[in-house]
Amino acid sequence: MTKIYNLDQIKEVINFSEIIEIIAEGFVFYSQGKTVVPPVGYLGFENADVHIKYGYIRDDDFYVIKIASGFYENPKIGLPSSNGLMLVFSQKTGELLAVLLDEGYLTDIRTAAAGAVAAKYLAPKKIDCIGIVGCGIQARLQLELLKEATECRKVIVWGRNHEKLNQYQQEMSEKGFEIETTTNISDITENCQLIVTTTPAKNPLIFADQIKKGTHITAVGADAEGKQELEAKIFDLADIVVADSLAQCVDHGDLSHANIAKESIIELGNVVSNPDFQRKTDEQITVADLTGVAVQDIQIAKYVYQKLK
Amino acid sequence: MTKIYNLDQIKEVINFSEIIEIIAEGFVFYSQGKTVVPPVGYLGFENADVHIKYGYIRDDDFYVIKIASGFYENPKIGLPSSNGLMLVFSQKTGELLAVLLDEGYLTDIRTAAAGAVAAKYLAPKKIDCIGIVGCGIQARLQLELLKEATECRKVIVWGRNHEKLNQYQQEMSEKGFEIETTTNISDITENCQLIVTTTPAKNPLIFADQIKKGTHITAVGADAEGKQELEAKIFDLADIVVADSLAQCVDHGDLSHANIAKESIIELGNVVSNPDFQRKTDEQITVADLTGVAVQDIQIAKYVYQKLK
Repeated sequence: MTKIYNLDQIKEVINFSEIIEIIAEGFVFYSQGKTVVPPVGYLGFENADVHIKYGYIRDDDFYVIKIASGFYENPKIGLPSSNGLMLVFSQKTGELLAVLLDEGYLTDIRTAAAGAVAAKYLAPKKIDCIGIVGCGIQARLQLELLKEATECRKVIVWGRNHEKLNQYQQEMSEKGFEIETTTNISDITENCQLIVTTTPAKNPLIFADQIKKGTHITAVGADAEGKQELEAKIFDLADIVVADSLAQCVDHGDLSHANIAKESIIELGNVVSNPDFQRKTDEQITVADLTGVAVQDIQIAKYVYQKLK
Repeated sequence: MTKIYNLDQIKEVINFSEIIEIIAEGFVFYSQGKTVVPPVGYLGFENADVHIKYGYIRDDDFYVIKIASGFYENPKIGLPSSNGLMLVFSQKTGELLAVLLDEGYLTDIRTAAAGAVAAKYLAPKKIDCIGIVGCGIQARLQLELLKEATECRKVIVWGRNHEKLNQYQQEMSEKGFEIETTTNISDITENCQLIVTTTPAKNPLIFADQIKKGTHITAVGADAEGKQELEAKIFDLADIVVADSLAQCVDHGDLSHANIAKESIIELGNVVSNPDFQRKTDEQITVADLTGVAVQDIQIAKYVYQKLK
């Protein structure tokens, strides 16, 4: 029997620590070639677009179709522009098991969970301060999920808009963080050992000469061609360069701007499964470029369905 | 609020006469370039496959995603191998309005309705006997929907398997037809003015030298590369050659085997909208090649949603 679940029901069963584990597992499946993910379907309208992502993990019980839409006139009538839902099917019989009306929430969570996975295996042990670049939804969720990857609760957040920075400070303080705001990015590079960039920037915000030894950076903003948050030279400095998906990152991630041999980029799934690829010392510089992989959708949809069932 | 409707609920609101009208309208939209239908998404498993078809009519209220699957081990556990569902979304806001768990029924109906549309505009006025080639689901539904396109209730059905022919005869007699069965295809070409071919044949079943003046043939079986029901020369004989989709039919329909200029093939939507392209005399030979077009799914999903709402 097909069940429909709404956002409130979905939020109730989400456990961040578990989500980080299943997302890490998903990256391992992906990097081991155990996932089947055809090209994304696209439907364009005058002021809207719809992306259809679908796939499965071999020998698993489920397959998943995600429909994510942006209807850019929606805010005029009081609706969010982004929407989304996931369909969970049986891989054995093809039956539709559940419709998850998550309104895009699960995509936000699985994206943030990937940041926590990267931090868990790549960030230095000792972190005095977390740096968050940007102050939107991902800037919030990335930080919230980092709770599971580090004990550090001191945070500097960078943004250009004082009002948004203050809002961020207030909200995230309530979640147990000690937040300072800045409009000067070097406050972050000087003081933070774990930095997450979450902006839609099209030109670098952080430059190689600002990076100190013992820094880990997770870049999640560059998810499409033309976007860039990190100066390309930063990848030359790095002792470990990680991509969630090698193919995607060299195509349209921050890594697409880098002049670095593909062979020297390690996929996040291989970092998770092989300690040789994880951080060795607190002096190393590490960078993870995250563009978002469909296996994350598959894993989180499965997880939510199994918890709700 | 998203609603889920099951097959029983869907069947209750289906009116064949209305369906034929909205399918005809859909073909007109399609041939006028008013539909947006991206390439079909495909997900393959070892013993199963899933097709994702999606699109919309410009300036309409809805967009539709259809998921059709074949899980070929299902019959072993008492489930049908084919399954399907349609999702109806708002084109204004992107919201999911309804999940139609039609199990593939709406695809069968919209396919049969296209045959009725072709018959309505292309078959001779006076039909003594209908010829049905094949005795599967489409052989049943095509005939059932032809009730709306002709008064004729005399039918000859062709098949290879006597048991299946007898089953067909019994079932369709109960629906008000007078059914004769044959294993000799010339019984059909000799006696029938309206012929519908519904088989998965890979070699021609009907040959040009069998076709009499005043015959209309609708070929619905060849829906993929390598399939063929009509000898290619039949198209040379025809006064009017019609394709539901010119692009699809010359690619993988019965017309893909024909040696005929594209310019002389008329799309069904243009037949519907322009009397110049419809049958003129009872002496003409007409052939319609139907491969199935996503606008049919869009139209029937919209229709069902609006009736159920």
